[in-house]
Amino acid sequence: MDAHSDPTFDDVLDAAERVHEFVHRTPLVTCAAVDDALGARVLLKCENLQKVGAFKARGATNAVRSLDPEVAARGVCTHSSGNHAQALAWAAAARGIPAFIVMPSTAPAVKRAAVAGYGARITECAPTLEAREATLADVQTETGATFIHPYDDPLVIAGQGTTVLEVLADAPHVDAVVVPVGGGGLASGSCLAAAGLRPDLEVWGAEPAGADDAFRSLRDGTRYPSVDPRTCADGLLTALSDRTFRVLRRHAAGILTVSEASIGRALRLLFERAKLVVEPSGAVPLAALLDHRDRFRGRTVAVVLSGGNVDPARLTGLLEGR
Amino acid sequence: MDAHSDPTFDDVLDAAERVHEFVHRTPLVTCAAVDDALGARVLLKCENLQKVGAFKARGATNAVRSLDPEVAARGVCTHSSGNHAQALAWAAAARGIPAFIVMPSTAPAVKRAAVAGYGARITECAPTLEAREATLADVQTETGATFIHPYDDPLVIAGQGTTVLEVLADAPHVDAVVVPVGGGGLASGSCLAAAGLRPDLEVWGAEPAGADDAFRSLRDGTRYPSVDPRTCADGLLTALSDRTFRVLRRHAAGILTVSEASIGRALRLLFERAKLVVEPSGAVPLAALLDHRDRFRGRTVAVVLSGGNVDPARLTGLLEGR
Repeated sequence: MDAHSDPTFDDVLDAAERVHEFVHRTPLVTCAAVDDALGARVLLKCENLQKVGAFKARGATNAVRSLDPEVAARGVCTHSSGNHAQALAWAAAARGIPAFIVMPSTAPAVKRAAVAGYGARITECAPTLEAREATLADVQTETGATFIHPYDDPLVIAGQGTTVLEVLADAPHVDAVVVPVGGGGLASGSCLAAAGLRPDLEVWGAEPAGADDAFRSLRDGTRYPSVDPRTCADGLLTALSDRTFRVLRRHAAGILTVSEASIGRALRLLFERAKLVVEPSGAVPLAALLDHRDRFRGRTVAVVLSGGNVDPARLTGLLEGR
Repeated sequence: MDAHSDPTFDDVLDAAERVHEFVHRTPLVTCAAVDDALGARVLLKCENLQKVGAFKARGATNAVRSLDPEVAARGVCTHSSGNHAQALAWAAAARGIPAFIVMPSTAPAVKRAAVAGYGARITECAPTLEAREATLADVQTETGATFIHPYDDPLVIAGQGTTVLEVLADAPHVDAVVVPVGGGGLASGSCLAAAGLRPDLEVWGAEPAGADDAFRSLRDGTRYPSVDPRTCADGLLTALSDRTFRVLRRHAAGILTVSEASIGRALRLLFERAKLVVEPSGAVPLAALLDHRDRFRGRTVAVVLSGGNVDPARLTGLLEGR
């Protein structure tokens, strides 16, 4: 696959074959209290139980396992302070190759420790996009490592799409799938999986109202940057790339925005009733069902709980509305 | 089955047939971080994701569904402030029969609300065993409802045993199963399931060191009461019955006691790494692996995460060692 091309359904199938022995086939669970709260049949795809606690393990594994041996030997690199950094560090370690992660000096110690725990080399930089990119360029020059973008990469997108292959294997007649949208890697991969297997399946992106660049981009048909996003869903601050925007324009049913209060309510439902630890970004799809109840009433809807990496004290604070 | 007889493997099979359409077939999940912490292959049986958030849904359903229609119509009753009360209320509602629950006046409002939410009628009593039993007798006389004991009941025991049938279906070659022990319903049901399918399978009970009546009872061959138990695992305060004691003496590999610190550490591993909300009692089997590491090193061990009903603030407090 050309690195500049758009991924296809076949790429998602290839990804599934490549990653299945390394990532979890996560359960699709149900909870009557969640169904009652929504007036819909809700299937919870537990990517919070995925390796490294997030679906990002899929895309990172697909990208890392696709490298030719001599290229792979020089390692992989990225700039991220989030789940992609952990996922890439883990996937590289699993293949036995080095990972170089550029992280802003403001990244929480716990995130640095998680990445370091997988044996990655961390390079600190100033907390600006310019500093990240310049530092990453230096790391690439020095090491010859391959840059794996967190979402603007066909192999990463195809890997994330395997999530929806599994949903459809477990629930072939589901009416809709709702996934969080940040950069759009999971959302566009999900669209490709659905387009190949169930073209009638609605794939919705869910986005915080305070970070609604994807919503506005799809509405206006022009890609907007993410400017001053305000949300507790810290995994969804980034904007779409040209590539993910193209895929979503073609295939997505639409983008649903959600309030911060509904993210809190969704987190509470998931913790108190479904007994699942989910990070704020991962609760955004369920929040979309709360905020767009009429659209899903009486239907069977899979929501992707995209990750579970949240500090206990922070989660309790969010549950208590702090 | 005679209410006074001991249940058998066949009763567990009957229970499985009776309950499978009402309860969840819960997932058996793995987590590399948990494996690394224990030096064993650990299979987490997620009864925290069960209906009403605990395995108790199995036994209650089996008991409720076994009643003849005319007996069932008068309802069921029990005294409990814990998961059995919720499970019985839920199972009765699912069959469309009344449930009468005697609860001590000291029961937390959230537990009363949960039971009331399933439509059960709650009768308050003073917080002593004598008051509970006297009040329950009054309720029985008044209503003609059938008493369903939380654990000293062959149908309840057989229902709980279906948990281990599922474990063995998913992991036929598991070396050992570890379950929490309070009154011994889950533990003795687990023993019966194992004895029928895999007589070589080790079934261990796990118990807080501060409530170690089952450990002492099996060690000395005489049944001790539970006197002044001290543990955060508030689901494991009760003593064995004659019936569960008999089953455990015959079949259990033994009882493993655990420290309060290890319960906290197990809760932390489950929350932070496995992304699962588990109540203190439900973390006791994993705590047993921490405290008896050499016994399980290098082996494949299923631990039953028996429930997930814990208040977020309380769980955070336990995670922070408060």
